[in-house]
Amino acid sequence: MTNTHHYAPEFQVRTWFNSERPLLLSALRGRVVVLTAFQVLCPKSVAFAVPQAQRIHEMFEPKDVAVIGLHATFEHHAAITDSVIEAFIQEYRLKFPVAVDAPNDAGPIPHTMERYKMRGTPSLVLIDRLGSIRKHAFGAVDDLRIGAEIGALAQEGGAIALARSSAA
Amino acid sequence: MTNTHHYAPEFQVRTWFNSERPLLLSALRGRVVVLTAFQVLCPKSVAFAVPQAQRIHEMFEPKDVAVIGLHATFEHHAAITDSVIEAFIQEYRLKFPVAVDAPNDAGPIPHTMERYKMRGTPSLVLIDRLGSIRKHAFGAVDDLRIGAEIGALAQEGGAIALARSSAA
Amino acid sequence: MTNTHHYAPEFQVRTWFNSERPLLLSALRGRVVVLTAFQVLCPKSVAFAVPQAQRIHEMFEPKDVAVIGLHATFEHHAAITDSVIEAFIQEYRLKFPVAVDAPNDAGPIPHTMERYKMRGTPSLVLIDRLGSIRKHAFGAVDDLRIGAEIGALAQEGGAIALARSSAA
Amino acid sequence: MTNTHHYAPEFQVRTWFNSERPLLLSALRGRVVVLTAFQVLCPKSVAFAVPQAQRIHEMFEPKDVAVIGLHATFEHHAAITDSVIEAFIQEYRLKFPVAVDAPNDAGPIPHTMERYKMRGTPSLVLIDRLGSIRKHAFGAVDDLRIGAEIGALAQEGGAIALARSSAA
Repeated sequence: MTNTHHYAPEFQVRTWFNSERPLLLSALRGRVVVLTAFQVLCPKSVAFAVPQAQRIHEMFEPKDVAVIGLHATFEHHAAITDSVIEAFIQEYRLKFPVAVDAPNDAGPIPHTMERYKMRGTPSLVLIDRLGSIRKHAFGAVDDLRIGAEIGALAQEGGAIALARSSAA
Repeated sequence: MTNTHHYAPEFQVRTWFNSERPLLLSALRGRVVVLTAFQVLCPKSVAFAVPQAQRIHEMFEPKDVAVIGLHATFEHHAAITDSVIEAFIQEYRLKFPVAVDAPNDAGPIPHTMERYKMRGTPSLVLIDRLGSIRKHAFGAVDDLRIGAEIGALAQEGGAIALARSSAA
Repeated sequence: MTNTHHYAPEFQVRTWFNSERPLLLSALRGRVVVLTAFQVLCPKSVAFAVPQAQRIHEMFEPKDVAVIGLHATFEHHAAITDSVIEAFIQEYRLKFPVAVDAPNDAGPIPHTMERYKMRGTPSLVLIDRLGSIRKHAFGAVDDLRIGAEIGALAQEGGAIALARSSAA
Repeated sequence: MTNTHHYAPEFQVRTWFNSERPLLLSALRGRVVVLTAFQVLCPKSVAFAVPQAQRIHEMFEPKDVAVIGLHATFEHHAAITDSVIEAFIQEYRLKFPVAVDAPNDAGPIPHTMERYKMRGTPSLVLIDRLGSIRKHAFGAVDDLRIGAEIGALAQEGGAIALARSSAA
């Protein structure tokens, strides 16, 4: 984990699912933000990153950690409509907010993906309670490590509690 | 495995991928056919059935076993266009022929899915060298069992050979 | 799978578990024999080969396939007593016969392991209904492949049946 | 995680592996202690708890987290000698200190296991930097959760660093 002392870039997206209104990153200040960029046709996103994001969402308290999905379409633009993304969210029973990144007239990389300089999907960004990026990973991240990193960041704000689960 | 002594129903589909021309089941007589019905937004299809079909395709010789994917859209019809299916096949690097089941004006269940009385996706049908259905399963099927069943069916036609692989 | 047309070597072992009397390979003629050599402290044996052997034992009918475990101690001789092996069989709830390979005064490699020229554990040998070795693998073997190979060998004797299971 | 405000019980063990000298829990004060109780013939210990302990050991810095294995023999006493445990540690390439719990003349449950009131193996105990038990779990614990809990406890002492790894 690094400490850059810059605010993470704001979202620039076209659609929100699982949220009654658009979310601003700045409004999530005070919570750790787990930003998971994925694409519905990307094998590693579907096999690893999306289910991991859902489990993170279920494990931590909303006051400590906010999981945000970012659907980053950088290819297959015509195929992946919002209807496809909505059906995916329904089929995978995702409960965390998912934003669809805003297309970019200047090229295939959508706006938020470009602002964060993501290399592809899946990408995972951890933003601390003060709004700074503390981790930026491309590809699958193992559970033990991401758990430890989120736990440590959450703890920076004082004592945290985890949801109870039959799995532990 | 059962032995019904009826010919398996012919395919009725709208599009073929990974095949230069439409395939007829009747033209596959003499080979064991592994028919894997899936849907690109169905979690069990994507996690289990599709990668298993690809591994079966890689393991057996084409003269013994033909793996056929059937994309069965019975919900999300508007979202799942042929472009989505084509992009999925590309992203998952599928090499076996995939047919898109033909929509049915009479209801949400497409034609081939209806003919085979499939309960949903994933579904797996094993058709023997003589054209009879010998297994029909709904849901994930474990590798050891499906391997044994295909191996036994293939052997009904005499000695088979498997592709060599670093995994074994 | 190869076809050597030699009889597989007979077992030379010191102890049998899960069998009322010593088993002779020659007495298993007519059935496919799956010989799984393992060691209770060998990580790949414990993680892959032993549970796979148990699943093979559960899936096939005894008249078609006989699974035989061979505990091959080629190091840690003093530590791995028959009591350790017996406790292992009990803890892992193994139901197939397990033989403890006979120690060899001439060196660390026990007798049966030497006769089969095994390179270590786990090793898997498939013996056909006529008593010939048809496969000899060192290391983990994937389920789909071993299923196919056993299914094909079993089918050489005519129609086989698999045990029913909730997993399929 | 609970906060009991009692010091965790001291170890009472007969043998140490991977440590030049006996370790006292009290001497680990200032670090988070991950105490993993296992048994070499217990399937869940071998499949889940032991490899997880090794990964925790590799991920955290020694100044933050000390992983201690406790071999808790509560059955198969005659079979599981120190030689068996030593060979297991070697075969599984464990690098963290492992203590063999001290047998109890009064019954099958060894001393440290009894002091901690463990229900069986595997058991996992998290002890904070001040020496208090904060978690006590029986059975397999998932990586995300245990990562989060250790990360949070370690962070109570200030900024932590994780080892770099190709896996993330």
